Amino acid sequence: MRKAYSLQIKFPEQTEEFNKRPTKTARRSLSRSISQSSAESHSPVPSDSDSSLDEISPQDKQQKNSKGQTDFCVKDIKQAHFGRREIQIVEQEMGALIALKLRGQGDKPLAGAKIVGCTHITAQTAVLIETLSALGAECRWAACNIFSTHNAVAAALAEEGFPLFAWKGETEEDFWWCIERCVNVDRWQPNMILDDGGDLTHWIYKKHPEILQNIKGVVEESVNGVHRLYQLSKAGKLCVPAINVNDSVTKQKFDNMYCCRESILDGLRKTADVMFGGKQVVVCGYGEVGKGCCAALKAMGSVVYVTEVDPICALQACMNGLRLVKLSEVIRTVDIIITCTGNKNVVVREHMDRMKNGCIVCNMGHSNTEIDVASLRTPELRWLRVRPNLDHIIWPDGKRILLLAKGRLLNLSCSTVPTYVFSITATTQALALIELYNAPEGRYKQDVYLLPKKMDEYVASLHLQTFEAHLTELTDEQAKYLGVNKTGPFKPYYYR
Amino acid sequence: MRKAYSLQIKFPEQTEEFNKRPTKTARRSLSRSISQSSAESHSPVPSDSDSSLDEISPQDKQQKNSKGQTDFCVKDIKQAHFGRREIQIVEQEMGALIALKLRGQGDKPLAGAKIVGCTHITAQTAVLIETLSALGAECRWAACNIFSTHNAVAAALAEEGFPLFAWKGETEEDFWWCIERCVNVDRWQPNMILDDGGDLTHWIYKKHPEILQNIKGVVEESVNGVHRLYQLSKAGKLCVPAINVNDSVTKQKFDNMYCCRESILDGLRKTADVMFGGKQVVVCGYGEVGKGCCAALKAMGSVVYVTEVDPICALQACMNGLRLVKLSEVIRTVDIIITCTGNKNVVVREHMDRMKNGCIVCNMGHSNTEIDVASLRTPELRWLRVRPNLDHIIWPDGKRILLLAKGRLLNLSCSTVPTYVFSITATTQALALIELYNAPEGRYKQDVYLLPKKMDEYVASLHLQTFEAHLTELTDEQAKYLGVNKTGPFKPYYYR
Amino acid sequence: MRKAYSLQIKFPEQTEEFNKRPTKTARRSLSRSISQSSAESHSPVPSDSDSSLDEISPQDKQQKNSKGQTDFCVKDIKQAHFGRREIQIVEQEMGALIALKLRGQGDKPLAGAKIVGCTHITAQTAVLIETLSALGAECRWAACNIFSTHNAVAAALAEEGFPLFAWKGETEEDFWWCIERCVNVDRWQPNMILDDGGDLTHWIYKKHPEILQNIKGVVEESVNGVHRLYQLSKAGKLCVPAINVNDSVTKQKFDNMYCCRESILDGLRKTADVMFGGKQVVVCGYGEVGKGCCAALKAMGSVVYVTEVDPICALQACMNGLRLVKLSEVIRTVDIIITCTGNKNVVVREHMDRMKNGCIVCNMGHSNTEIDVASLRTPELRWLRVRPNLDHIIWPDGKRILLLAKGRLLNLSCSTVPTYVFSITATTQALALIELYNAPEGRYKQDVYLLPKKMDEYVASLHLQTFEAHLTELTDEQAKYLGVNKTGPFKPYYYR
Amino acid sequence: MRKAYSLQIKFPEQTEEFNKRPTKTARRSLSRSISQSSAESHSPVPSDSDSSLDEISPQDKQQKNSKGQTDFCVKDIKQAHFGRREIQIVEQEMGALIALKLRGQGDKPLAGAKIVGCTHITAQTAVLIETLSALGAECRWAACNIFSTHNAVAAALAEEGFPLFAWKGETEEDFWWCIERCVNVDRWQPNMILDDGGDLTHWIYKKHPEILQNIKGVVEESVNGVHRLYQLSKAGKLCVPAINVNDSVTKQKFDNMYCCRESILDGLRKTADVMFGGKQVVVCGYGEVGKGCCAALKAMGSVVYVTEVDPICALQACMNGLRLVKLSEVIRTVDIIITCTGNKNVVVREHMDRMKNGCIVCNMGHSNTEIDVASLRTPELRWLRVRPNLDHIIWPDGKRILLLAKGRLLNLSCSTVPTYVFSITATTQALALIELYNAPEGRYKQDVYLLPKKMDEYVASLHLQTFEAHLTELTDEQAKYLGVNKTGPFKPYYYR
Repeated sequence: MRKAYSLQIKFPEQTEEFNKRPTKTARRSLSRSISQSSAESHSPVPSDSDSSLDEISPQDKQQKNSKGQTDFCVKDIKQAHFGRREIQIVEQEMGALIALKLRGQGDKPLAGAKIVGCTHITAQTAVLIETLSALGAECRWAACNIFSTHNAVAAALAEEGFPLFAWKGETEEDFWWCIERCVNVDRWQPNMILDDGGDLTHWIYKKHPEILQNIKGVVEESVNGVHRLYQLSKAGKLCVPAINVNDSVTKQKFDNMYCCRESILDGLRKTADVMFGGKQVVVCGYGEVGKGCCAALKAMGSVVYVTEVDPICALQACMNGLRLVKLSEVIRTVDIIITCTGNKNVVVREHMDRMKNGCIVCNMGHSNTEIDVASLRTPELRWLRVRPNLDHIIWPDGKRILLLAKGRLLNLSCSTVPTYVFSITATTQALALIELYNAPEGRYKQDVYLLPKKMDEYVASLHLQTFEAHLTELTDEQAKYLGVNKTGPFKPYYYR
Repeated sequence: MRKAYSLQIKFPEQTEEFNKRPTKTARRSLSRSISQSSAESHSPVPSDSDSSLDEISPQDKQQKNSKGQTDFCVKDIKQAHFGRREIQIVEQEMGALIALKLRGQGDKPLAGAKIVGCTHITAQTAVLIETLSALGAECRWAACNIFSTHNAVAAALAEEGFPLFAWKGETEEDFWWCIERCVNVDRWQPNMILDDGGDLTHWIYKKHPEILQNIKGVVEESVNGVHRLYQLSKAGKLCVPAINVNDSVTKQKFDNMYCCRESILDGLRKTADVMFGGKQVVVCGYGEVGKGCCAALKAMGSVVYVTEVDPICALQACMNGLRLVKLSEVIRTVDIIITCTGNKNVVVREHMDRMKNGCIVCNMGHSNTEIDVASLRTPELRWLRVRPNLDHIIWPDGKRILLLAKGRLLNLSCSTVPTYVFSITATTQALALIELYNAPEGRYKQDVYLLPKKMDEYVASLHLQTFEAHLTELTDEQAKYLGVNKTGPFKPYYYR
Repeated sequence: MRKAYSLQIKFPEQTEEFNKRPTKTARRSLSRSISQSSAESHSPVPSDSDSSLDEISPQDKQQKNSKGQTDFCVKDIKQAHFGRREIQIVEQEMGALIALKLRGQGDKPLAGAKIVGCTHITAQTAVLIETLSALGAECRWAACNIFSTHNAVAAALAEEGFPLFAWKGETEEDFWWCIERCVNVDRWQPNMILDDGGDLTHWIYKKHPEILQNIKGVVEESVNGVHRLYQLSKAGKLCVPAINVNDSVTKQKFDNMYCCRESILDGLRKTADVMFGGKQVVVCGYGEVGKGCCAALKAMGSVVYVTEVDPICALQACMNGLRLVKLSEVIRTVDIIITCTGNKNVVVREHMDRMKNGCIVCNMGHSNTEIDVASLRTPELRWLRVRPNLDHIIWPDGKRILLLAKGRLLNLSCSTVPTYVFSITATTQALALIELYNAPEGRYKQDVYLLPKKMDEYVASLHLQTFEAHLTELTDEQAKYLGVNKTGPFKPYYYR
Repeated sequence: MRKAYSLQIKFPEQTEEFNKRPTKTARRSLSRSISQSSAESHSPVPSDSDSSLDEISPQDKQQKNSKGQTDFCVKDIKQAHFGRREIQIVEQEMGALIALKLRGQGDKPLAGAKIVGCTHITAQTAVLIETLSALGAECRWAACNIFSTHNAVAAALAEEGFPLFAWKGETEEDFWWCIERCVNVDRWQPNMILDDGGDLTHWIYKKHPEILQNIKGVVEESVNGVHRLYQLSKAGKLCVPAINVNDSVTKQKFDNMYCCRESILDGLRKTADVMFGGKQVVVCGYGEVGKGCCAALKAMGSVVYVTEVDPICALQACMNGLRLVKLSEVIRTVDIIITCTGNKNVVVREHMDRMKNGCIVCNMGHSNTEIDVASLRTPELRWLRVRPNLDHIIWPDGKRILLLAKGRLLNLSCSTVPTYVFSITATTQALALIELYNAPEGRYKQDVYLLPKKMDEYVASLHLQTFEAHLTELTDEQAKYLGVNKTGPFKPYYYR
């Protein structure tokens, strides 16, 4: 049975899709990228899988939780109390979701919802799942990534009674088996999908299209998953409404500007142990990520240069006191080079040949194409692995450049994503589910939607509470004067 | 003849329009507001009109320039050399327009264009008019405001041979007479309109509708003028294409964020002579203007609080380290209150009753409605004019609050607008004229358009040169990867 | 009688002293410099002296205040109520001095003190004089500068009964006559001196040495006056204790860092109307003044370079993200040059020959020697006065540089000094007087002292109240642990 | 033999000394504190000592380097090439020392110097030792801390021929044995001492006083060691000149302000994984460390409050836009509490009882006395170790506070010290040795000296080179005008 699935997951057109650039506007996905790097960045209980190699597969184990339930598959149900502790810890920073839970426990806006989910299984996700449940939903869950599952957390959810199928180190077969166990159940049919990457949706399309008749909506988190949905829509094959939560304003600002403003420092410090004061840094690209990086480094006393192709972003850089240069102008003198363009081959071998000894090169942008790392794999250059995520590339004359994370995303490879950022994501997902589930007939067609502005504003308002921040309310008179509703939305949908 | 016009300018529906709030999204117009405050902020040659009261009207004078031309009407042609000096001075900061002039002098993209213009007559406008002329256009010009004309500059333009009709201190009759002199000319018919406020366009609609057949397009600068155009369009009466330059990205950022970041300090210092360090300030509204004000004050060592109604802007304030409060929470302790909401009655009498002695109140927002100044006109309060633009309002117990500019816009009443900001506006206007004049048949219908993104980017790129800033160019490969044209536009039209 | 004095004020050695550099450590004096520029910066009631030329001298007028007193000499006693209003206005920002007045009104620490003072006569000084009086002192007062007296304020003090001798536009004879009237009185001998510039002290030394026997101490404000005292001391001629208040920590920080951080922006904006964003600026000197200027400009979006001779200051600049360069490296590209070195010929003709068109040059440093303005007075260069404090110097090829305030101190010539800064000074002066007057026999010898650290701390603590700032008090245990007294001083005297 | 030493190291008065607060002015020592925390923060080659437990002691091993030398004792000479790699890596950030080496290789200012050293043995120290050697000195070296030795680096030095006696995990006996091996050598007597902590100096005093006759000077790095020297001096027992390098300006600024500005973020992120944006933080103490912490957190978007006892520091906080409060005012609302006072019991149980759930408490100050951690060891509170350096303290009602590093120094326990900071220290040490060794007879008495200002400036100038920073040189005329020497010193010795 398991074998069968693995045979069928080779969808050639799918593979192509993964290699394409997801959307025109160079957006970044925490979720998908995390999945690619989760081994490094996701292990608060580091010994998690140390001895897993020699063990039998969770599929072949018989496990029961303390209530005697068996409808789950995790690595080791006995780890549940460790996982519960982790969940309790992250709840400290997920006040928004907790607030949503408390507000909704009365009217249970998800009563009757049967949600099948496929996301990273972390303590933060656990808070989401338990929130959905408290709001009335029944949930079944699988992991969207074979490495990112936090086994103890998975155990804690299973212990709580959630049918969850996930462990760290799944094979590709395991991966699809887990999804199938979520979807193909006697006497239970999902009516909502929460997906991160599109694999679950894809699976249902291919294997259980009959389920789609019941589905009231899909909520998709990742750039890749959203791209697949838009393709389905364009091909006329999307037969359910979908909400793209990746592009909500709040989430984007946190994923890009605010999170990167902090993680650039963390990533550089952890890998290169560099002092920022007085360093000359060039940041390639002055979009949201570049703006965050520049703000942080300038504040820490670095001298920051910017390269840009878009004159409007370039003028913003100027007005913020950053020298706008071509990379070649400063390449011989800078101490650190950071790419944030969403583009490819921004830093190429020719640049690296001209860098000074000790220059640090890293990537905060969209993918690992920004630095032409392949061009460094030539016989005359010596690679020296100095620390995890730090390689010295040594030129014949002894010059070294310090390449971080082999050119992969620094913030995900070498930094952590704070729980607060996950909270934004999870709250957005929960609200999108509520919206789709409760929307009156006809509000959503078989198309891909952005999160309604008003919901975006609601996510933001829930997160204000953490800061003991107090919103002002419009008077009736003022609302009328402005021509807006007192409860929002307050700005056009494209406002950032 | 002049009398006649003044009879006909009483369009009752028009007056209403002027009292209405211009657009839903609370934008601010430098141009219109300047006109309302130009007596205060616009006189580099201060003795300009001192002795004007006892003089005969320019209409009744016979003046010739040194080439013997008489097709103009200004205060005193002999002031031309003073005006020329002013023009030369501002050219230092208008490099973008000069660059445009130099680039276009060969192919003369406006050859054949006959532009009738109605704007403030300042040294900056003079650079615009001379640029349009160098690009091939014939121009006739009037003032859009009865107070804002810089007489010496007007003289310099007339001396150069431009048919210009404007002086400081026009009557309402004079105002329309000047416009008529621009429009109603033997053997010359305009084919382009550059308007600021909509009065010129309105006049042509009412008095010379036949001209509209020749008009290839209208470029409108102000919020009010744009509002009138949208109304015409909605009513199906707009019979020419129009470009709304007020809402171009570059212009908006400069009018709002960058310019206010500097003028808030200038305005407060000039009026209240306050030291910023250590002061507690509350900024009402965290849109672009509020963001600019907060950034400046925080940098100068003030403790800054923010009030907001929109949770997304509110969260941005939090992430930038600003405490989000309700006004009532801090009203008793703050030293300075700044409104930037575009709303009305944000600061009301009840607030002012609770402010501490010495509290400064001012407005950087959309109009003079943000502070309820009328509520201070009660018998128990004493008003003491301390300096121009500074009133002490004294409570019976001796408490004083310091009201700046009587609640009108501080940045326009009490600060100057740097030439660089005017340069953005003028360059945008010039490009919009070129675009409309050269657009192929059918690109623009009888509707109101935003400046094409690509032109917006071009305005930005011209202004980069002042900073010796160097844009990076995409390689063919990179452009293909991103799916954009190598020369832009690089972002969706709504990108800010 | 008056003639006599004028004969005797020609002390040749004195003149030399005035031309010498005051002290080794390049400190700056607000007070003295103000006196040199007070015509420009000191006239909230601008019509003050317009018609003074054709009037008879105040010396020759018979004036009485409303109590019938005649022991004063001011321009016009009838202006008293205007002056009182000014005094009330500045009291808003002089809370520290008011607090000192309230605290001391009970025990009157200056009871019996007979203070003769010689300072600028402004609204701020009036608050000081009235405070000294409330603390028990009898005061007689003259102006330390022939131009800086605010006539209406002088009238208000005279009206209040203070024997004050000062008006705007004194001749040199008047100046010494006024001082003589303060010092040489029947049945009243001063026992304390408050001086600003040293002229009063000098006069007493030369003309009334017998008074010195009664003097318990001298408080001196200015660099020049302090320099004279140190010279007296070195020569063994100082026969009273003196306190140098110019070098107190609090005062220095405000005069240099905090005040300049704000006034650099004000000064540049007022004179050159420049936008700061994106501008390239070089700041020569990274002492306290340079630190203030750099912080402000960086925050406003300028790209800031620094030149320094001292490696420690230079390293601080680097750690604050400022590029350390030699002036010649950036002279061709910068938009603004600001000198803050306390040195001479920092910007010379050779530099100015290489500056780009439109470059702004100004001085925030110690004196007008930093820019070699004299080198610009050559036939091939044309000077064009554009505005007060703004000259265009035009090279034969048309290049212009913009020289502000003819190279004199920008912050004093073209900006205002906030009352809060004066409050620091006045409070320091008052405390120094109290200290000297009440010090036990023997604490102070015939020497020049710095303000005791504890008093410096007290000045700071009084000024904290304006900010509703709350100091923490040490517990007994903590004070013991740190080895300090619970009430301070908390740091070594040289702590900055 | 070894036993004997261990008997004699129990000097009761010494133990007392260690418990006393070292100096009045609350300075912090990187070096000593590092020794206390080196197990955590000092292992770039983490497997260094994994298998050390079951091995024989280095003392009992016979080892030879590749040249056949045996005068050393390290863990494993075969690790030398790993250590050399580490040394090469850190040389990238120690350009100042390398520059000193290159400049001095010709005249060998330490020719004839026989230096005995006792410091941490790290890659950075290796660069120092090799520099001293290149300048002409003979060196013998021991570790100043039983845990901090980097074995591979020690091996690399031994391989190079340095008589070095140190390994990670020494016993106390080993510790003194190593020192003895450095000092007590046939036909070699030291004439210079470089000490960090005072143990080496103490040993020589107690065991080999005869050596002191040859000693030209002692250079001491740590607060504790300096304290011991001052005590010797006060007691009249100091018989050699000593330089206190701990208090040099450059070193202090880096240890305190610049280093903490970066390490506060690193430490908080690593332990509590917190996002800074929007967080409310109170920083107790606004000295250099507090200034660094506040600058960093404000820049990252935190709302920062400050507590202070010293009014001058308090006023500085105000002028930098920080609210000055008493801890009790904000204790219920803040998210993070950071102590930087050098004081004791700044945060006590009563405060912690009132903190909100999730509040983070940590210490950046002088010692582990600032937070009263002992008061949390009561039965009703539960401690939960969440991660290394992160404990949750759980109140009976479920409230948690997050205590970092058990109240020990966060920057040393949970962050790394960048090589650049070590470079400052090492360069200062080298220059102090050169100064003492070459000083003419009589310049230094038997007393404790600060590093001469000029040398301090030289350290700074060497470190400027890393930043491609260019100092300006005074002209002869300017130097004369300022009354300083062209080559410095430029400021009074107490300038910071």
